[in-house]
Amino acid sequence: MHRFKEILKAEEKKITAALRDEINRLDPVVRPLVLHLVNAGGKRIRPLMTVLTAGAFGCSDPMIYALGGAMELLHGATLMHDDVVDGAELRRGSPATHTVFGINRSILAGDVLLAACMRIVLRSRNFEIMESVALAAEKTAAGEVEELHNLRNPQLDFAGYLRIITGKTACLAACACEIGAMQAGAPPERSRAAAAFGLELGIAFQMVDDALDIAPQSVTGKPAGGDLREGKVTPMFHFYLETLSPRERPEFIEAFSSGSFSESALRSITSRMRERGCAERTRALASEHLLKAAEYLALVPEGQEREILRALIAHVRDRDY
Amino acid sequence: MHRFKEILKAEEKKITAALRDEINRLDPVVRPLVLHLVNAGGKRIRPLMTVLTAGAFGCSDPMIYALGGAMELLHGATLMHDDVVDGAELRRGSPATHTVFGINRSILAGDVLLAACMRIVLRSRNFEIMESVALAAEKTAAGEVEELHNLRNPQLDFAGYLRIITGKTACLAACACEIGAMQAGAPPERSRAAAAFGLELGIAFQMVDDALDIAPQSVTGKPAGGDLREGKVTPMFHFYLETLSPRERPEFIEAFSSGSFSESALRSITSRMRERGCAERTRALASEHLLKAAEYLALVPEGQEREILRALIAHVRDRDY
Repeated sequence: MHRFKEILKAEEKKITAALRDEINRLDPVVRPLVLHLVNAGGKRIRPLMTVLTAGAFGCSDPMIYALGGAMELLHGATLMHDDVVDGAELRRGSPATHTVFGINRSILAGDVLLAACMRIVLRSRNFEIMESVALAAEKTAAGEVEELHNLRNPQLDFAGYLRIITGKTACLAACACEIGAMQAGAPPERSRAAAAFGLELGIAFQMVDDALDIAPQSVTGKPAGGDLREGKVTPMFHFYLETLSPRERPEFIEAFSSGSFSESALRSITSRMRERGCAERTRALASEHLLKAAEYLALVPEGQEREILRALIAHVRDRDY
Repeated sequence: MHRFKEILKAEEKKITAALRDEINRLDPVVRPLVLHLVNAGGKRIRPLMTVLTAGAFGCSDPMIYALGGAMELLHGATLMHDDVVDGAELRRGSPATHTVFGINRSILAGDVLLAACMRIVLRSRNFEIMESVALAAEKTAAGEVEELHNLRNPQLDFAGYLRIITGKTACLAACACEIGAMQAGAPPERSRAAAAFGLELGIAFQMVDDALDIAPQSVTGKPAGGDLREGKVTPMFHFYLETLSPRERPEFIEAFSSGSFSESALRSITSRMRERGCAERTRALASEHLLKAAEYLALVPEGQEREILRALIAHVRDRDY
């Protein structure tokens, strides 16, 4: 992304300004929680996807930055609730919102953000955009419920996994691109292509994230094997299972299902997963989705914005932190 | 409400059918939670307000029942989250959703409902309606954050209390009436009057609820003094404080602020509150808002629907359970 540094910097500045405006319009009682979350960092990837897709289709309407801000706030709402649900202590290297302001306030502030996002999007006066955002918000939360529902379920197959990550991660990325195209007045089939680009990119992003679960703490900043500990079924689980002998499998499945891995067992398993190429196989799956993303991206008008979106594909592929 | 029994029964039937349709469109993983909550009861007051207000303005569009259903789902979303926040065990006499399905799933299912409500409302293709609902959802959650923020704060004055109950309770009632008028195509000033009717009714409803906090458990089904126990500042708190001598006040305020009332202290205080007319004074405040509600209702076209809405005023005033 280095050669686009100047453009990205300029766009990020406008996104940050729009985001600040929207946060200032929130009820004063929730602002401190939102500022805590937003100021902790985040790369504003979703707003960038909105702004860049709109730019590719020739949109110069300043409303696009407010829409980008709405995407970040919707993402923020899901993070606030996710961190409560996961009992996460840290987010973006800072204390998670609920550890500072309490669980109750974080639940309700997330609700404010969710509703505020819809209120902002309404300013576009575009039904298709509003529908896209409402559906994405609904699918994101439903995907998370389905994930909870399938924790420690070794029967969850690949189709189920794909449904879960499409919901919890990819739908919002698809929406971010789609509403950019829609706000630019792109023809419906091009908006659909932009959405499909975001969807495939989001799926690949989550798969790479799942592959990074066994990376050493020195690389990612968090202990390896978190998904195994929490009982999340990802491709890593299935690829590892395939390398086990029929005699080894029942014990592994039993420990996974009952959540009874010892820390030393987790160290051995993640180490064996590394040796046996489970992360590489998962990244290979991600690459297939990135190929599809590139195909859909070809339906977006060429230009600098499309080049940056293409660079995002390589960024997702090569991510190792 | 007895003499309107037949009409109410017919409308409730249509609301229930619309609500069932909308629940069937939700992601299958969240349906059991929503059905648990909805089937536990509830008087569908908000959908009725929507349908009756629309009817008063001559609306016969079947879409109104979907809008009513959206109001009930939005209300349901807030109940699911409230019960988590309050640690409530029971809702409508049944186990609260989170006690059956877990806190995490209840948080995320509430998010699905909030987004689904917006998706349903979008079908009206009416920006004013969508804006009204998004704002109501935002203000409801913000009101709850402000309430949490002011727990055990004896400094909270009447204006602060009014702001909190307007947010957490009355905004949604205002919205329920307003969108009914809007869907009926009422002139803006009449839609505003309908909203103001709902707002005043909602404020009064909450005040009566606060007055009922000291009613004996045999009447309400829950232990008296819950608000004192949880540290909620209501008019009851201030009216009681006024009856204390300057020497008694610091001890009461200290116990309230630190949440250190013993159960026997709560029994004495609620009993004294009863003797000293605190509930009657709170109900008198509610009556002032009901008078305003009646004035605004006069701006709604006359007819059977308006008569039923007027009967709601008496219903709120006389509620003793």
